[in-house]
Amino acid sequence: MSDETASRPGTRRGPYAKSAHRRAEIVASATSVFSTRGYRGGSLREIAKQLDLSLTTVVHHFPSKSALLVAVLESADSAHTDSFQVDSQKEGVAYAVLQYVRRNVDRPEMLRLLALMAAESSASDHPAHEWFRHRYELTIGMLAIAVRRDQEEGRISNARDSRGIAESLVALWDGLQLQWLIDPHRDIVATMTAALKDLLGPHALPDA
Amino acid sequence: MSDETASRPGTRRGPYAKSAHRRAEIVASATSVFSTRGYRGGSLREIAKQLDLSLTTVVHHFPSKSALLVAVLESADSAHTDSFQVDSQKEGVAYAVLQYVRRNVDRPEMLRLLALMAAESSASDHPAHEWFRHRYELTIGMLAIAVRRDQEEGRISNARDSRGIAESLVALWDGLQLQWLIDPHRDIVATMTAALKDLLGPHALPDA
Repeated sequence: MSDETASRPGTRRGPYAKSAHRRAEIVASATSVFSTRGYRGGSLREIAKQLDLSLTTVVHHFPSKSALLVAVLESADSAHTDSFQVDSQKEGVAYAVLQYVRRNVDRPEMLRLLALMAAESSASDHPAHEWFRHRYELTIGMLAIAVRRDQEEGRISNARDSRGIAESLVALWDGLQLQWLIDPHRDIVATMTAALKDLLGPHALPDA
Repeated sequence: MSDETASRPGTRRGPYAKSAHRRAEIVASATSVFSTRGYRGGSLREIAKQLDLSLTTVVHHFPSKSALLVAVLESADSAHTDSFQVDSQKEGVAYAVLQYVRRNVDRPEMLRLLALMAAESSASDHPAHEWFRHRYELTIGMLAIAVRRDQEEGRISNARDSRGIAESLVALWDGLQLQWLIDPHRDIVATMTAALKDLLGPHALPDA
């Protein structure tokens, strides 16, 4: 993608636009390096080299490798939280989860990066440890609220524990996604649909 | 662990025992290096250094990093398959899965390694790609057979697809395990018990 404002350094917005463009470039390159070599295996030098930039330029934008990792994760996780809220209010949590899956099937590399980073960062001394702990807490909390709403509206049995269901939903998605990344011939949407019906009961999904 | 036969080079079994001991040492060191830095981030040099061995000695036992990785995975995955078969024949698949979880809660580092390697190896050019693809196929196939037996014996509804349930069981365990690795304060056995009841219905687990 070319950046027109960046080529007109005389305009007011030029330097900012150029800087944002450069940052985005660095984040994209870091995404590819981290998703292949892991965070600990990747280096700022390799990321700079991939873009034909000096290490100094990269460090100017991201003073440390961990600062760059957080930017990479934030960008990978632009997880359409707003759409999820809208979908789950309209058609229930199972529908919203399926929509989320459908929005993600065309970005396996991003999902691989998140899976790899989640596993790597489960060690408590990893720079993204807190980021993932917080992310899981947030996601599970949001899903538990959506499950409770479904229970009130009769989509899911009231006898079930909403927090437990939320944890299982996140686990199912993480686990089935991993199976799909390992063997992309599987139909992840069909698999997830069946698993949601199994876990949540026959009324959780709107009639197709 | 000391190796007595290794200290008696005059005996017949000496060199073999010594070699087996050295191999086990190298596998243990590689397990720790790969589980921290990933496969791509780890190096034979680092593994040798950790043991105060020369690189040549390591290469004598494992000619390549990928040969060493396979040895590490085989050792991490000594997954008590036999116990699983016995448990599931006796008390059903849900009970067998819970016993498997119980046997694994005291080895989080090993689980972290397997989770990290599974994510990393989902890229089709990874040296452990085929190993994991095969491992998942085998595990899901074994679980599907156990689910079918439970269906015949009335523990799980016959209306359900055994292969789909097997995939969901593996996914639940991978996903809940990841949540537990990220936040070890959770009670993974209690969480898994609840999830199994949710997924498989009220008759899947024997009465406690």
